[in-house]
Amino acid sequence: MNPVDPAGIDTPIGYVDLERVRANAQRVADYAAQHGIAWRPHIKTHKSLEVARIQLEAGARGLTVATLREAEVMATLTNDLLLAYPPVGDAKLERLVRLPMSLDLKVALDSSDVLESVAAASAAADRVIGILVEQDVGLGRVGVQSSAEVVRLASLASSLDGVEFAGLMFYPGHIRVQEDEQTEALALVFEQLTDTYAALESAGFTAGIVSGGSTPTLWQSHAFPGLTEIRSGSCIFFDREGLALGVASHDDLAYTVLATVVSTAVPGHAVVDSGSKALAKESRGDGGFGVLFDHPGVLLESLSEEHGVLDLSQTDWRPVIGERVRIVPNHVCVSVNLQEALLAKDRDAHSMLTLEGRGRGPWTG
Amino acid sequence: MNPVDPAGIDTPIGYVDLERVRANAQRVADYAAQHGIAWRPHIKTHKSLEVARIQLEAGARGLTVATLREAEVMATLTNDLLLAYPPVGDAKLERLVRLPMSLDLKVALDSSDVLESVAAASAAADRVIGILVEQDVGLGRVGVQSSAEVVRLASLASSLDGVEFAGLMFYPGHIRVQEDEQTEALALVFEQLTDTYAALESAGFTAGIVSGGSTPTLWQSHAFPGLTEIRSGSCIFFDREGLALGVASHDDLAYTVLATVVSTAVPGHAVVDSGSKALAKESRGDGGFGVLFDHPGVLLESLSEEHGVLDLSQTDWRPVIGERVRIVPNHVCVSVNLQEALLAKDRDAHSMLTLEGRGRGPWTG
Repeated sequence: MNPVDPAGIDTPIGYVDLERVRANAQRVADYAAQHGIAWRPHIKTHKSLEVARIQLEAGARGLTVATLREAEVMATLTNDLLLAYPPVGDAKLERLVRLPMSLDLKVALDSSDVLESVAAASAAADRVIGILVEQDVGLGRVGVQSSAEVVRLASLASSLDGVEFAGLMFYPGHIRVQEDEQTEALALVFEQLTDTYAALESAGFTAGIVSGGSTPTLWQSHAFPGLTEIRSGSCIFFDREGLALGVASHDDLAYTVLATVVSTAVPGHAVVDSGSKALAKESRGDGGFGVLFDHPGVLLESLSEEHGVLDLSQTDWRPVIGERVRIVPNHVCVSVNLQEALLAKDRDAHSMLTLEGRGRGPWTG
Repeated sequence: MNPVDPAGIDTPIGYVDLERVRANAQRVADYAAQHGIAWRPHIKTHKSLEVARIQLEAGARGLTVATLREAEVMATLTNDLLLAYPPVGDAKLERLVRLPMSLDLKVALDSSDVLESVAAASAAADRVIGILVEQDVGLGRVGVQSSAEVVRLASLASSLDGVEFAGLMFYPGHIRVQEDEQTEALALVFEQLTDTYAALESAGFTAGIVSGGSTPTLWQSHAFPGLTEIRSGSCIFFDREGLALGVASHDDLAYTVLATVVSTAVPGHAVVDSGSKALAKESRGDGGFGVLFDHPGVLLESLSEEHGVLDLSQTDWRPVIGERVRIVPNHVCVSVNLQEALLAKDRDAHSMLTLEGRGRGPWTG
């Protein structure tokens, strides 16, 4: 990687601390290893080969992706890939079965429609794709609604050429509170999982893989009964959400958006050149769209497309035009997705980090 | 443009109806011409040369941009460009003064710091850049706070090499209500503008350009005293915001996101493959992140990164997996910014439309 001078870099631009990235990766990999579970990080957070390489070197068993672009890019790094999203339509199916034959490829889905089309495409390409049946454990977004439906799709997968039943996937994304307030919601998830294992066993199936967990429940993952792997993605960078939930501390924050103060004309405020097109306008119940890394009391109180307005009412700090600040976004994944590249810091050296998995094209299979 | 088969196009992808784009452009250009004001559309909405060409052919006098990338791309189409954003830092200043010398280039700003640095860079490049002083008329984001400050910056611009005072810019972005509820807020803007004109005149200045207006006040633009041009950008496509404010009707909607139903597992809902990475998660007071173009009663009730959840409680329509829908986003500009290209429909032909002005690089001057 060619060195760059950060002082000469224009803003806004995503800024990554690679030492922290390595530390975050190692901590999650060590935690997973300690509890005998695997870590298959969701690379939607970073979409970068370099960061995925760090995760794999730290001990990640494979990678999780959401898009075909991400799959194509990450298949160059690992032989163990989970597409955690139902591929619907010919364009996606064609790209799916064109992934390297050497890949241990798994797809998560929640319907016989998608299962049958994946099986047909896979069989026609003379390959076998592992099927994880996704079960809804409370989020109400996707996932079959009962253990009986899990068994039904497992049976269908077993009866079709081109696919094999590989296990269960769940995502407890409805649990977004601090660890000590998670007990009751977690117990309900545990109950559903246990019920599903029993139903599968009765029907003669084994859920080889149980892929679950989330970032808010990250350090409780070992308590999920039967869990074999976690997919947590944002734990590689963390964000304001992770801080608020107590799953990360300020020292773990590895991603910020580097911005420049461009206006101080309105009293009590300063305006930076980083708006919703660099941070994403994701609101939180407690207000604001981000905080300053070096002034955690300074809230990004509003966002236009290219303007971010800092609330200076709770600080004595008075920025001047041209001053640079680093913003911790509410949600890191969608902010990274808005960058064409990241400025990466590694000890005292800086370089540009490309995001090879970003985007969706080509749009035709 | 090469024809494409829309049935073979993967989703999600932004989808533009060029006949509606031309009609929208013509309506705004005609309205402006009728009232003797100019239209200098903000191309941040579309970032596309093809769409900008349509706006210029309809009668737009020039173009407005927010980023240097947008400026560089759009300078190939017009000789009249307004950078409606203060360029701060060497990288932006170097790119600014490297724009074609033949360009009638104007920059809006609100501080002597930025004015002095623009003047220095411009003088060193042996050119003259027009300065619009931005006044805050109520939004509280950027802009000088009084007519006296407008005069101070006009005087400073007149005293510096490399720049000349060209006029006033304002943005009444705090007015986001229906036309018939705008009267009081508009009167306050009118009062501030009139006061500023008087102060400028007393000091011997003429505001040659008065650049103002907004999309919510679009059809009231002629009522602003002294206005010479409007910049409205989203009126080329419109969105759910425009519908809610009554500034556009359903027939004016020229941009949607084409999406595919990928899950119907959760009762009362359907999930599409279009989430915050295709639509942008911009919340509204009345809830939801978008509506279906063909089923306006169906709200996009929640958004994850790649999932959009449709609320089916107010409709008898029951989509099936693989079915395609078109989503009207809350805010069109940030959705377009998430696309790598658009699928464009022109009568019965489809083609891919590139977004040349998207992105921010290169990051060094």
